[in-house]
Amino acid sequence: LENDVRAAALGAHRVLAPEAEVLVFVGLGTGVAAGVVIDGRPHRGAHGLAGEIGHVVIDPDGEPCGCGAQGCLETVISGSAVRRRWGVEVAAAGHALVAAAAAGDTRAQGILDDVVAHLDLMVQWLAHTYGADVIVLGGGLGRLGDPLLVPLRHRLRERAGRSDVAARVVGPERVWCAPAEIPLGAVGAAAVADAPIRPIEGAAIRLARRPEGRDGLPASIKT
Amino acid sequence: LENDVRAAALGAHRVLAPEAEVLVFVGLGTGVAAGVVIDGRPHRGAHGLAGEIGHVVIDPDGEPCGCGAQGCLETVISGSAVRRRWGVEVAAAGHALVAAAAAGDTRAQGILDDVVAHLDLMVQWLAHTYGADVIVLGGGLGRLGDPLLVPLRHRLRERAGRSDVAARVVGPERVWCAPAEIPLGAVGAAAVADAPIRPIEGAAIRLARRPEGRDGLPASIKT
Repeated sequence: LENDVRAAALGAHRVLAPEAEVLVFVGLGTGVAAGVVIDGRPHRGAHGLAGEIGHVVIDPDGEPCGCGAQGCLETVISGSAVRRRWGVEVAAAGHALVAAAAAGDTRAQGILDDVVAHLDLMVQWLAHTYGADVIVLGGGLGRLGDPLLVPLRHRLRERAGRSDVAARVVGPERVWCAPAEIPLGAVGAAAVADAPIRPIEGAAIRLARRPEGRDGLPASIKT
Repeated sequence: LENDVRAAALGAHRVLAPEAEVLVFVGLGTGVAAGVVIDGRPHRGAHGLAGEIGHVVIDPDGEPCGCGAQGCLETVISGSAVRRRWGVEVAAAGHALVAAAAAGDTRAQGILDDVVAHLDLMVQWLAHTYGADVIVLGGGLGRLGDPLLVPLRHRLRERAGRSDVAARVVGPERVWCAPAEIPLGAVGAAAVADAPIRPIEGAAIRLARRPEGRDGLPASIKT
């Protein structure tokens, strides 16, 4: 049996980018964790611990984390972190934050900017360690789509314009948001059970080009 | 053909820890790059870009990097970064820095502390993404051994004492320095050519326990 995020990674690979050599799915929910598919198979790592990225300490003086350490990644970019940092009690914290920022709330905008900056850091580490064709952001925050993806890709594009290495390893077209309407976890669970699954035609091209419609496409993605 | 760091990773796997499911070798030389062996085979990633960690931007306002970006990891923890930051023209910058710090040079000590803090960050990302049994530090800086390894493991041990996740994913016994006397790259190149290679008996136990002789050993390492 796979954990949720590995099942979602497998689902994303099967329906969105079946030709990706390396696909990373990041669940941005209550916590933060990554699932990785290498050559079509989930990578579990020693003792099944691959992808536990929510507990990388990115700021040793940061907020206490439930795990006992301080300043873990998920104290900054998870759904629960957004709720705590913003201090507003809402059900869908990500949506509310994005709406408030769009309405001119500068504190909400500041938190959103900081989330995007840390997503940038996370995406770089994932791309540079794994050599990923595609990184799919999912979970409650990941499914926000454009309000996260547009500024995140802006950072990646700006860096890619200055650095060839950045352009090759983590060009903006490599980062996608999970389509809210596809239950990737269920698809992945079916894949584990060996059920027949049809890739969604053209999904890779649509997601890589979304939202601006002018990103290139990694050569290894030919869906 | 493998690149240098992937060959060294393969060599480290064959002679030091042949039972590791996931072994990461980090070359800390002029630049910084990682080679990864998963289930006995080098992981190359899409377009062979896995392990290009030297160009993760850890500080967007940091020093300019040769790649065109700013604040890349290798502007902080490579041999050339040590030379530039210290401003002292020496052949073996790492050895000289360690000697100066030991002799009471507070500026040298400050640079060394900062290198160790960033090695800690790097080791966490590598362990939490890949789920690594073992991370071997090599290259000119990595081969410094105890002056890097003792303070690095101290940080990891301290965190592991507070966080179960940290203890499981990146306990101090998982991080080793490459033994200076074994040409891991040459061994790895021979492994690629399918030459017979004998593991060094007990190497995993010795390296995991070194220098303090009281670290545990990952269950999957039974050499």
